[in-house]
Amino acid sequence: MAPIIGVVGGGQLARMMVPAAINLGLDIRVFAESRGESADIAVTETGDFRSADELLAFARGVDVITFDHEHVPQDVLHALVDAGVAVHPGPDALLYAQDKLLMRERLGALGLPVPDWARVADAAELDAFLADHGGRAILKTPTGGYDGKGVRIVSSGAEAADWFSGGEALLVEELVEFRRELAQLVARNPSGEIALWPLVESIQRDGVCAEVIAPAPASAGRLADVAADIATTIAESLGVTGVLAVELFETTDDRLLINELAMRPHNTGHWSIDGSTTSQFEQHLRAVADLPLGATGCRDEWSVMVNILGGPLTGSLADRYPLALAEQPTVKFHTYGKSPRPGRKVGHVTAGGDDLDDVVYRARAAAAFFED
Amino acid sequence: MAPIIGVVGGGQLARMMVPAAINLGLDIRVFAESRGESADIAVTETGDFRSADELLAFARGVDVITFDHEHVPQDVLHALVDAGVAVHPGPDALLYAQDKLLMRERLGALGLPVPDWARVADAAELDAFLADHGGRAILKTPTGGYDGKGVRIVSSGAEAADWFSGGEALLVEELVEFRRELAQLVARNPSGEIALWPLVESIQRDGVCAEVIAPAPASAGRLADVAADIATTIAESLGVTGVLAVELFETTDDRLLINELAMRPHNTGHWSIDGSTTSQFEQHLRAVADLPLGATGCRDEWSVMVNILGGPLTGSLADRYPLALAEQPTVKFHTYGKSPRPGRKVGHVTAGGDDLDDVVYRARAAAAFFED
Repeated sequence: MAPIIGVVGGGQLARMMVPAAINLGLDIRVFAESRGESADIAVTETGDFRSADELLAFARGVDVITFDHEHVPQDVLHALVDAGVAVHPGPDALLYAQDKLLMRERLGALGLPVPDWARVADAAELDAFLADHGGRAILKTPTGGYDGKGVRIVSSGAEAADWFSGGEALLVEELVEFRRELAQLVARNPSGEIALWPLVESIQRDGVCAEVIAPAPASAGRLADVAADIATTIAESLGVTGVLAVELFETTDDRLLINELAMRPHNTGHWSIDGSTTSQFEQHLRAVADLPLGATGCRDEWSVMVNILGGPLTGSLADRYPLALAEQPTVKFHTYGKSPRPGRKVGHVTAGGDDLDDVVYRARAAAAFFED
Repeated sequence: MAPIIGVVGGGQLARMMVPAAINLGLDIRVFAESRGESADIAVTETGDFRSADELLAFARGVDVITFDHEHVPQDVLHALVDAGVAVHPGPDALLYAQDKLLMRERLGALGLPVPDWARVADAAELDAFLADHGGRAILKTPTGGYDGKGVRIVSSGAEAADWFSGGEALLVEELVEFRRELAQLVARNPSGEIALWPLVESIQRDGVCAEVIAPAPASAGRLADVAADIATTIAESLGVTGVLAVELFETTDDRLLINELAMRPHNTGHWSIDGSTTSQFEQHLRAVADLPLGATGCRDEWSVMVNILGGPLTGSLADRYPLALAEQPTVKFHTYGKSPRPGRKVGHVTAGGDDLDDVVYRARAAAAFFED
């Protein structure tokens, strides 16, 4: 029998695993919070992912549990493992994608390059860090942040009084002077096999990924090698299974510093659906099922992914399709079955080809049909 | 709202429409004969496709009806159309994919190249045809045949007594001396837009498609142009909507003769999932939803698809995966969730690249893991 993959979370990452599962002949079942979510076609159970009982019941019908998001609490993850469920990535790895303070500590202990950072418990400690780092810094809540949420720039401890009032220690990081942001995706299966996609460039707007260029321009050689080493070290040292995304800064003085980790398919890998021999979604399924990994080369010289953020203010995505498809017949369109809402990731487009300017133009032109 | 596509039939063609629907953000619902069929993930209704009442009930929940197979009876198709349901392809086109005698008559009337043929009602008429065509010919039941079923070679009318006993007239065709078999796939939407994939070569074994090479070697120029003209003429003259496959003989004296028609995604187009900018499944959905069609160029110089026929005699397809995936990391594997059975199409693999010999080797090597 083909292994049955159980995915916790019904968002677009779970949705995009479904085509890969259908092609490979793997059975996929999704545990969502409610019906009508992005991955609805594969939802077999709805409930609360914070409930060990509910997840244990779901896990009984599948061979391996993996995730659409990183929000399943550690005690629930451990309850699954203790019950003999195969969980990939496992709780001991996921911990470092859930808690940015632990991540910074661990990566530092591994000797990996990270921005200057500190754990700060109050305004005075934050002021001390600011005094040493030019008076401005990035303050982050250790848990629960994503897409720019839980992140702010501060220039005094007093400014952050609201966040300290929760009593939780915060993470403060130097403001890195960077030339651009990069991402290195890697997949690792429980047998230890590793596969890396090319290093990509990600362009962020308002803390949200807006565009990805694969491979990152002018990255072949040293930059690609360093990024691959960093991602491999993290995947192996932390025992990550499935896809790991390592978001990186390329600094103005030519270093790579680790920004964030994600232990699941990631927005910076969406280009791979159309642009790589093996997409991040197929690879994630292969990895969590402990199947051999697929080839990760580029199918085009350049692939450019542009997110559809928010969607049209009037009408639906589908209303915009006829013109978009007619004008950009070579572009691949992906929509997630989500209602438009300002800033929400509701879809993406990917273009490919030999001429980067042309590829960027086509991808942006296609995405623009869905905006207002 | 995105259009909702209703597919009648739960086989692998319906299954392979699902990833395309998910990517495009189209809702897809399948009417199957029973649960557990290949397209199970998208099944919303089970029943008898010969029942107008049951299909009408299914059609009420969707915006357009299309098909996994060509077996829905004409009276049921007309009942849907009469009730105002958008049916693509429509009954007046499907008729020619359902009845080979009508197809031969119509294509002949259009002046398109077909083998010598005759309608024969009894053994004496068959003997007369045989006398004029070298004593051997192909006899076909006009309806219900596929994958070599309903087709036999005969050398006397007496041999076919069992088929004539049904009282139905049969189709007899000359034994064409052909160099190879080719297939031209085309998509047409209700607005009249047409898109053609490259002409492909299909290698048949025991009347079943075994391999497809895209594009057909040494076909650029005259051969490709003639095939494109034939397929375009058929699609437009018969008012086909969705994907049309035209199976062709390339004769030893350099003519193209039309063998069979299929009005749905077709085995000779499976390579397009991995090998073309727009797969036949995505294009079929775009066409039946009357959306603009996508680009149909090749993503690799050569694509080779090899069917997995029968599957392993011992164990399941999934048991063979680890070795197959490990040995052929560049090959794309597709399995249909069907139990192995001799001769049954249970999956396919596609390889791509610049060197045809290498591509053929990799595809055959990958498929071989699933045989025994």
